[in-house]
Amino acid sequence: MNQSPLGKIAVVGSGAVGCYYGGMLAHAGCDVHFLMRADLDTVRREGLRIFTKGGEVHLPRVECAATAEEIGPADIVIIALKATANAELVRLLPPLIGESTALFTLQNGLGNERFLAERWGAERVMGGLCFVCINRTAPGVIRHLDEGSISIGEFGRPVSVRVRAVADAFRSVGVEANAVDDLDGERWRKLMWNVPFNGLSIAANANVADVLADAALRAEARAIMDELLDAARRLGHAIPDAFADWQIERSFAFGGYRPSSMIDYELGRPVEVEAIWGEPLRQGLAAGAKMPRLALLHAIIRHVTERRALRGA
Amino acid sequence: MNQSPLGKIAVVGSGAVGCYYGGMLAHAGCDVHFLMRADLDTVRREGLRIFTKGGEVHLPRVECAATAEEIGPADIVIIALKATANAELVRLLPPLIGESTALFTLQNGLGNERFLAERWGAERVMGGLCFVCINRTAPGVIRHLDEGSISIGEFGRPVSVRVRAVADAFRSVGVEANAVDDLDGERWRKLMWNVPFNGLSIAANANVADVLADAALRAEARAIMDELLDAARRLGHAIPDAFADWQIERSFAFGGYRPSSMIDYELGRPVEVEAIWGEPLRQGLAAGAKMPRLALLHAIIRHVTERRALRGA
Repeated sequence: MNQSPLGKIAVVGSGAVGCYYGGMLAHAGCDVHFLMRADLDTVRREGLRIFTKGGEVHLPRVECAATAEEIGPADIVIIALKATANAELVRLLPPLIGESTALFTLQNGLGNERFLAERWGAERVMGGLCFVCINRTAPGVIRHLDEGSISIGEFGRPVSVRVRAVADAFRSVGVEANAVDDLDGERWRKLMWNVPFNGLSIAANANVADVLADAALRAEARAIMDELLDAARRLGHAIPDAFADWQIERSFAFGGYRPSSMIDYELGRPVEVEAIWGEPLRQGLAAGAKMPRLALLHAIIRHVTERRALRGA
Repeated sequence: MNQSPLGKIAVVGSGAVGCYYGGMLAHAGCDVHFLMRADLDTVRREGLRIFTKGGEVHLPRVECAATAEEIGPADIVIIALKATANAELVRLLPPLIGESTALFTLQNGLGNERFLAERWGAERVMGGLCFVCINRTAPGVIRHLDEGSISIGEFGRPVSVRVRAVADAFRSVGVEANAVDDLDGERWRKLMWNVPFNGLSIAANANVADVLADAALRAEARAIMDELLDAARRLGHAIPDAFADWQIERSFAFGGYRPSSMIDYELGRPVEVEAIWGEPLRQGLAAGAKMPRLALLHAIIRHVTERRALRGA
């Protein structure tokens, strides 16, 4: 397995995203090691099963470990923890990092590449945006509900050899993968949808169809996108107005889709408040953008999620 | 009783506010007739009891009727229905209106004087702002929890003889009453508190202490006040910045007070969404103010309250 051009890959955060993307790389012949807790024994015994629209990928033998020390230094570390758990990385990552280890974050929102870069060096950091809908339905079982794609790029640099190599590995097993020069710009484009729709799903208890059917909420979603457009442009990402219009238009096809944050909030799971709302707000304000709607939305969401976390504790 | 200088007074909407202010005028010797539904038999039999900090006011004999026709034309009609029930006034008011009948609304927020003026003539309309905390604890029993005051004015005109006469009647029984020249300006001042604090109580599930303890929510409350300040000034009401600062400062003494809208929302009662958020937004926008936070807050509150109303139906 060590002949894979990607070398040794470690996956930190073996939930649905980590198991799916790590599993597909293992399926492509890569040497993938999963850091696992709850599912460790089951996966050691039974392997990983990934159900996609196209069929089932069964990986009967999967390398997995209970500690980062057992895995040791890797060539690429895939990071798929929730952004709310980033503090754990300070303990989990060091045993995995060798001289030229790449840190490849698949986390949502803004600020995760910067978190890694500030602690382990910007040159190591690459990121991926996952456009998928996947669930972990049982230990070692991943159900891929909708076909998705991944956009992969370097942190603050154009596409590199390693980015192309990772994208090629994904493509070799049918995962649509794009190498992108402006990773941060891609993140802002994705936030154009997540900030209003995930935000109003919590603040107004409204799924996508609810937002679109209420003329005032739909106008607010579009106005929030305008604030993000202005911020992104000030930060050097030239996103046209038509992109925001398209984000609204395409959403009509989503029906009553419940954004992931709405499900997380209702189930009492951590919500990635700072990655999705806080960091875009801070970056936009620092760049001179006015973001009154995002400021209010962020304050509301942070308050209700922290309050619920306190009640749950 | 007909010797009272105020003549015959009808009270439409005999909840806590109508019974308290109507009851205190009856206590002052006025000829007050209450239009009642649920509490009619009890009040006919047992009268009204108003418990204040100072003691109990018992009115053993109270004029009350099941229909406006039984009451007939009055000199002053006190309107204390919720603003959400204004459509009922089109049916309830005509039998009470004679040639020179004054319509005196004690309702919350903006737009109620205009509603009356458009249908029955601006010259009839006067309004009152009630700064009180009162509950109806049983049929015919009103508990006045905190000492309050009433500010009384004409609709779009300076203080008149009838405004002074009503204020004098209240004062004669110890109710603090102020005659004000700029009734609409007073309403904007009151909204400076109600819009953010009642608004965030619903949108962020936060009582007054919660808003003040969360630096971001407190800053949002103050920023919403700035939007209202700008709108009020464009509409000719010169409210200084210091008034908004004072609205925040004085609120620290309120502790965990739950704004009335929060209680209404939680108990499934109608919330006065348009009087408190919708009408200030529309008037401000029409005057050229930018009100992004109020627009978002209004859209969220309208959505969640309508949704809850649909579920309850």
